[in-house]
Amino acid sequence: MTSFELKAIGRVESSLRELESAPRQPDEGAPDAWLDFDPGVQEGLASLRPGDEILVLTWLHRARRDVLTVHPRGDPSRPPEGVFSTRSPHRPNPIGLHSVRVTAVQGRRVRVDHLEAVAGTPIVDVKPLLSGRIAER
Amino acid sequence: MTSFELKAIGRVESSLRELESAPRQPDEGAPDAWLDFDPGVQEGLASLRPGDEILVLTWLHRARRDVLTVHPRGDPSRPPEGVFSTRSPHRPNPIGLHSVRVTAVQGRRVRVDHLEAVAGTPIVDVKPLLSGRIAER
Repeated sequence: MTSFELKAIGRVESSLRELESAPRQPDEGAPDAWLDFDPGVQEGLASLRPGDEILVLTWLHRARRDVLTVHPRGDPSRPPEGVFSTRSPHRPNPIGLHSVRVTAVQGRRVRVDHLEAVAGTPIVDVKPLLSGRIAER
Repeated sequence: MTSFELKAIGRVESSLRELESAPRQPDEGAPDAWLDFDPGVQEGLASLRPGDEILVLTWLHRARRDVLTVHPRGDPSRPPEGVFSTRSPHRPNPIGLHSVRVTAVQGRRVRVDHLEAVAGTPIVDVKPLLSGRIAER
């Protein structure tokens, strides 16, 4: 199986400490958080401004990677679904995708609202949300 | 720098062969394509249905990873921007994010519309777009 080296470019600083207490969707009460980027990628942040809507891609480092079916929202009363039809963190490549708004930029630290990721979660990419458009190449 | 092993779970089959001819955004004329998944992850596809709106995450294997600023849309007359404010494929972790609709599912092969990725591009994840919601954990 072909594989690629994904590099952490920063970490999430958050009051969220436990996976179990992390909200499953951002509208369920995720706290504001700091994104603390590595000095080596700071130049890439230069155009970020408060108010920007961004997608933060993370590596869900506590997730299991050997899971292909899950009960939606962890509810065992619901029939299992193929993991690619769910938002479960447990999946072959546990990449998290978080839609947030930038509220402050301080050098290589970026403040965002409502981030549903625990403290220490590695950041792997940031992309702009352009007019609500998600796709890119 | 911490790194993680991202595994290819499939490949794009497309009539797009050249990076240069690939449209920069899907509304600029990307062709339909097949997603050909590895047998080892087929169970994860079991709940995908024609009509589903999904996000396909790819590894943009031809991209450069040492780029932190770019001219938007490759236009040298435009001032350079930090790469995390752009959709450039050239970035520290060249993950592609493609919003497409499933048009057919045949075992471990999934047909989608308007995919702006060249033939052979590795697929690393698939996520549902739920009511237009992007975020997850």
